[in-house]
Amino acid sequence: MQAKSFMDQDFLLSTNTAKKCYHEWAERLPVLDYHCHINPEDIALDRKFDTITQVWLGGDHYKWRQMRANGVAEEYITGRASDREKFQKWAETLPMAIGNPLYHWSHLELKRYFGYDGCLNGDTAEEVWNLCNQKLKEDSTSVRNLIRRCRVRLLCTTDDPSDDLKWHQAIAADPFCELKVLPTWRPDRAMNMEKPDFPKYMWWLGETAGMKIDSFEALKEALGKRMDYFQSMGCLAADHGLEYVPFAPASLQEVEQIFAKRLAEPEYLPDRTELDQFKTAFLLFCGQEYSRRGWVMQIHYGCKRNNNRRMYEKLGPDTGFDCIGGRGSTNALTDFMNCLEYRDTLPKTIIYSLNPNDDTAIGTVIGCFQNGAAGIPGKIQHGSAWWFNDNQRGMAAQMTNLANQGLLGNFIGMLTDSRSFVSYTRHEYFRRILCDLIGGWVEQGEYPEDWDMLERIIKGICYNNAVRFFGFPVPEET
Amino acid sequence: MQAKSFMDQDFLLSTNTAKKCYHEWAERLPVLDYHCHINPEDIALDRKFDTITQVWLGGDHYKWRQMRANGVAEEYITGRASDREKFQKWAETLPMAIGNPLYHWSHLELKRYFGYDGCLNGDTAEEVWNLCNQKLKEDSTSVRNLIRRCRVRLLCTTDDPSDDLKWHQAIAADPFCELKVLPTWRPDRAMNMEKPDFPKYMWWLGETAGMKIDSFEALKEALGKRMDYFQSMGCLAADHGLEYVPFAPASLQEVEQIFAKRLAEPEYLPDRTELDQFKTAFLLFCGQEYSRRGWVMQIHYGCKRNNNRRMYEKLGPDTGFDCIGGRGSTNALTDFMNCLEYRDTLPKTIIYSLNPNDDTAIGTVIGCFQNGAAGIPGKIQHGSAWWFNDNQRGMAAQMTNLANQGLLGNFIGMLTDSRSFVSYTRHEYFRRILCDLIGGWVEQGEYPEDWDMLERIIKGICYNNAVRFFGFPVPEET
Amino acid sequence: MQAKSFMDQDFLLSTNTAKKCYHEWAERLPVLDYHCHINPEDIALDRKFDTITQVWLGGDHYKWRQMRANGVAEEYITGRASDREKFQKWAETLPMAIGNPLYHWSHLELKRYFGYDGCLNGDTAEEVWNLCNQKLKEDSTSVRNLIRRCRVRLLCTTDDPSDDLKWHQAIAADPFCELKVLPTWRPDRAMNMEKPDFPKYMWWLGETAGMKIDSFEALKEALGKRMDYFQSMGCLAADHGLEYVPFAPASLQEVEQIFAKRLAEPEYLPDRTELDQFKTAFLLFCGQEYSRRGWVMQIHYGCKRNNNRRMYEKLGPDTGFDCIGGRGSTNALTDFMNCLEYRDTLPKTIIYSLNPNDDTAIGTVIGCFQNGAAGIPGKIQHGSAWWFNDNQRGMAAQMTNLANQGLLGNFIGMLTDSRSFVSYTRHEYFRRILCDLIGGWVEQGEYPEDWDMLERIIKGICYNNAVRFFGFPVPEET
Repeated sequence: MQAKSFMDQDFLLSTNTAKKCYHEWAERLPVLDYHCHINPEDIALDRKFDTITQVWLGGDHYKWRQMRANGVAEEYITGRASDREKFQKWAETLPMAIGNPLYHWSHLELKRYFGYDGCLNGDTAEEVWNLCNQKLKEDSTSVRNLIRRCRVRLLCTTDDPSDDLKWHQAIAADPFCELKVLPTWRPDRAMNMEKPDFPKYMWWLGETAGMKIDSFEALKEALGKRMDYFQSMGCLAADHGLEYVPFAPASLQEVEQIFAKRLAEPEYLPDRTELDQFKTAFLLFCGQEYSRRGWVMQIHYGCKRNNNRRMYEKLGPDTGFDCIGGRGSTNALTDFMNCLEYRDTLPKTIIYSLNPNDDTAIGTVIGCFQNGAAGIPGKIQHGSAWWFNDNQRGMAAQMTNLANQGLLGNFIGMLTDSRSFVSYTRHEYFRRILCDLIGGWVEQGEYPEDWDMLERIIKGICYNNAVRFFGFPVPEET
Repeated sequence: MQAKSFMDQDFLLSTNTAKKCYHEWAERLPVLDYHCHINPEDIALDRKFDTITQVWLGGDHYKWRQMRANGVAEEYITGRASDREKFQKWAETLPMAIGNPLYHWSHLELKRYFGYDGCLNGDTAEEVWNLCNQKLKEDSTSVRNLIRRCRVRLLCTTDDPSDDLKWHQAIAADPFCELKVLPTWRPDRAMNMEKPDFPKYMWWLGETAGMKIDSFEALKEALGKRMDYFQSMGCLAADHGLEYVPFAPASLQEVEQIFAKRLAEPEYLPDRTELDQFKTAFLLFCGQEYSRRGWVMQIHYGCKRNNNRRMYEKLGPDTGFDCIGGRGSTNALTDFMNCLEYRDTLPKTIIYSLNPNDDTAIGTVIGCFQNGAAGIPGKIQHGSAWWFNDNQRGMAAQMTNLANQGLLGNFIGMLTDSRSFVSYTRHEYFRRILCDLIGGWVEQGEYPEDWDMLERIIKGICYNNAVRFFGFPVPEET
Repeated sequence: MQAKSFMDQDFLLSTNTAKKCYHEWAERLPVLDYHCHINPEDIALDRKFDTITQVWLGGDHYKWRQMRANGVAEEYITGRASDREKFQKWAETLPMAIGNPLYHWSHLELKRYFGYDGCLNGDTAEEVWNLCNQKLKEDSTSVRNLIRRCRVRLLCTTDDPSDDLKWHQAIAADPFCELKVLPTWRPDRAMNMEKPDFPKYMWWLGETAGMKIDSFEALKEALGKRMDYFQSMGCLAADHGLEYVPFAPASLQEVEQIFAKRLAEPEYLPDRTELDQFKTAFLLFCGQEYSRRGWVMQIHYGCKRNNNRRMYEKLGPDTGFDCIGGRGSTNALTDFMNCLEYRDTLPKTIIYSLNPNDDTAIGTVIGCFQNGAAGIPGKIQHGSAWWFNDNQRGMAAQMTNLANQGLLGNFIGMLTDSRSFVSYTRHEYFRRILCDLIGGWVEQGEYPEDWDMLERIIKGICYNNAVRFFGFPVPEET
């Protein structure tokens, strides 16, 4: 009865215009993964994997959550069970994930990286296990080749200001690695003064900057030095992960006092207002520096982390116990951006909210700070649907919303936000959804069948807009 | 021009796969109504009704609201007008409810219970009135037969801890009643200490537990005794109705002080913090008890009640003057569940929010507390769209959201939450929407045409998953 | 490949039933624009325009925002560039607005007012510029004729209580103007005591009322006098623009103290609580007066204004720097309406929220205050999706929501909220979306093919319901 075969070449493409947009343009474009969490060491050493479980289930807490939701014991998820047993449990879980993006991602990954066109479930697990592990013995499945296979031209990792970026250096110096790997400045640890190890981190950050951090002024100086270093390594973007956007302006003196007290008294925990004041000052400084350097400021907010204390004590962070935060942030976000803009220090910015409730408001917030004087189309961007929202509905909703409130044609498109080397197919997923959306509009008579303009828009969103927006050292596609 | 006739056998089923899923499986399954508000006395006595107005409009504030929205005077809704006149007003209102679930529910009910296939409106009211009242004279429209007609195998009522459950006893002892009717523990009155009659209720609850409630400790003891009684009557689930989820942990001593003050001074109204502290302690105790007993904890939140004081003074509660609450609760909910989980006292749980804004966040919250150690697939559930959301869009949105964030295959499905004996057709409505959703995915090539798996998923969501989740004493369907 | 030509006669109409509903009924009905911001002076003087830039881009901050989002320098938006240059920049921006309502509005306007059926872009700009400017030389493009062309029968402007309404007088007295132009009472300046010019405004309002405003009591008296004047000029509606709905009841004495302090000390800024108390008292007074006079109370909330201080200092308000507010208001709204209803002073009311997150809750709030005693079907209305939401998705969502929660059949339909004389085509846009929604339901078998009822519903929503609801002095359409 299927009108379309399971995940065939026209997967998610429901009109002829969508198929044309995808197969003629979107499918063939290179990939820019301007925001991910992969480990550059693995690229530098061109790591290989022994089993599909290592490369596929090793650190993927998206999959872990679904296994837990299927009643699988932790032993088979993060515990001591064998790779084969863990794979079996995942294979048995997958069919219950009907309608879940993992169902599609998993099969896209099996298709594109391992050439498996069937359906993974408990019965086929053995066959898939053998096939994939066989492939993993080939050179074509080394880290670099996995990346090459998806035409990734450039990717940006996520890095702490204290990082020495030695693997980035190694990759840049490697004549056999044509892939560009740029660092991204992610100074969360320097801002989160409520964390127990904040004083220790201040000491360490000072070490890497060759100075002592004993004041907020000194912190800013140290950050500036490290930004210089990141810049010398090709950094073009910063990222901030916030539970919510704070906006509590305070005098420099107040901020210095909060900072001094936190460093002087290890047990002192600043209250909510003090934290917000410090973080506001921190972020305003960062924005000003990014603006001066031409960097892109990414703000991710709306995640409430480590919600299962028992599992946190066992497994640590990023193991599948985070959720969407319930506190909206758009009013504070607006005030924060207003403050930067008034001082003429608002950098190119991407706003991502994890809570889709904020999406429509964000679409209107960014419209208040577009600035033709900068000459950049889409200087302020609403970031692609991510994490809990990078499913079909979430991505279509984010783009429809963007289209309703602003200029979809200037959107910089998809990122993986992933720790995995086999998740570049998410760009394929995104491109199919984009083409289906636009194709549908054309076939409904809501946008003209202007192929030149459609080509420009598709190529822009999939690739060229991000090249121009970040100023990446790669050629545009014509 | 209609592509499909009005509400025919394929109502809401837009693909062949949907039709197959519905007609081969979903349509034929028995019904578990694990959460409703019907009066067990009516089942015990196998009540009959004289007019369609009594059975259909008698206590149905959903319909009352729409009549008010159509400018109908209260006399014809809850007042002294005749049953025939009231029926006429409803019949005249219905056609304006285009796109409203009541339009569909009403016609499903007329079809399934009274065999009327036309459209109810002002002109047909007389004909429908006569037909239905004629049918009501037959034995086939006694309460038990109405329930049998929809293949209801088991239902859970909603009961106060002080209830003697005598009608449940009578039903259980009746050899002619094959229907299982289990009580549900709903201790809201024991928690809502802001209510004027709280001290009196404490006295009464103590009476039923054979003790004096003069402390929070004593309250917990009394609740435990009553839980024992409910358990002996087959209770497997509890339900809490909250305007918002509180989370304000306090010491046992603080809670005892709040409780003591409330009992000692009849005029004393605890402030917001004290109320939250007491309720948090109350709910943590309940969760721990449910966990120990293997009960399911249902949490309904997000309803703001009795918003029209004038009408409240005239008609009392549950008469159509409630609305969705504007206060999100997912952060507190997460902290509350974290606390139970950390103590290893988190029971099987169903979270229902009335405000659909919380849905995506809830989908991510439940993923933080799934626990394979319990061996229960889907230990934490996101409850079906209810009340203001149990329309086509709301149910499809809840299930799409569930599918995006977790394992739809483990969902425990629909409940009526109804006070009516002719609302079991809402299960039909739900099943059609479910089959249409899944059928659409299959025909779009987004899920394989794997009939065995589809059968397992459909049967699971419509019936088997709930049997297993609650541990109901009824057989699974194979 | 287009299944439908670009924006042809069946634009947005995807079923035969939708086409019939639109072409037989909706398309032919007159327009009531019961809420707009056009300048009555332009109607009185029957103004003409020299260039398409003047009439189309002159004050349209919707378009300005998109130009900024395309990186266009302010000079070409609100600056000194020539009309031709500004038009060119807009033409180049438009194709990037794929999926944006401006894409459709712009082309509807070019079609209906200027007879241009092509696509506007950078290449066609010259041709369109010439065509439109040629047309603007004809009498058929005077303000009155632009309005006539869209069969507008009555419109309501938005007016300050201190306004002398002289242009309304002139229009009413003009035998050549068959269009009815009524004032709307918009007393925001009399409520916003946090504004620097509040004391001055109090003086001026007193002047126009022939009295001195030195107390809240006096303010109410002055407002009453001005309401009498507005009423004598045919006013039937009031409008309040709020960032959020306040509800903080206070004693009359407290309110008088706040008011007195604000007037006595020019530098005194009331705190948040005081502001909320004053505004609550103000709004309760207004509601009571509207109820007494039979006026409609419109409440618009959820807009956060003037978010770009730098541009505000350059261009002032209403220049494209507003956004959706992040603070939900439905709890306070419910309490406010409850208070009016309890005193039997709740007028006919329309609630509009700019944040679509509040929509489902609003649908349930209005259901708490429908009052059959008033005999008005739909006494409390959920206003049409506006500003950032009056796109295809937003309007369909608002109507679907309304249909799910109440009686869509009693909806009073569309308003432009516009400052432009060529935006009446938005009523066409709305009507197409409405007909497509209803047509889809009929063809899916979700509503019967009852043409009499469908005609009544379509004509009601597009025109008749608003005539009855407001009591406008124009005939209903049969």
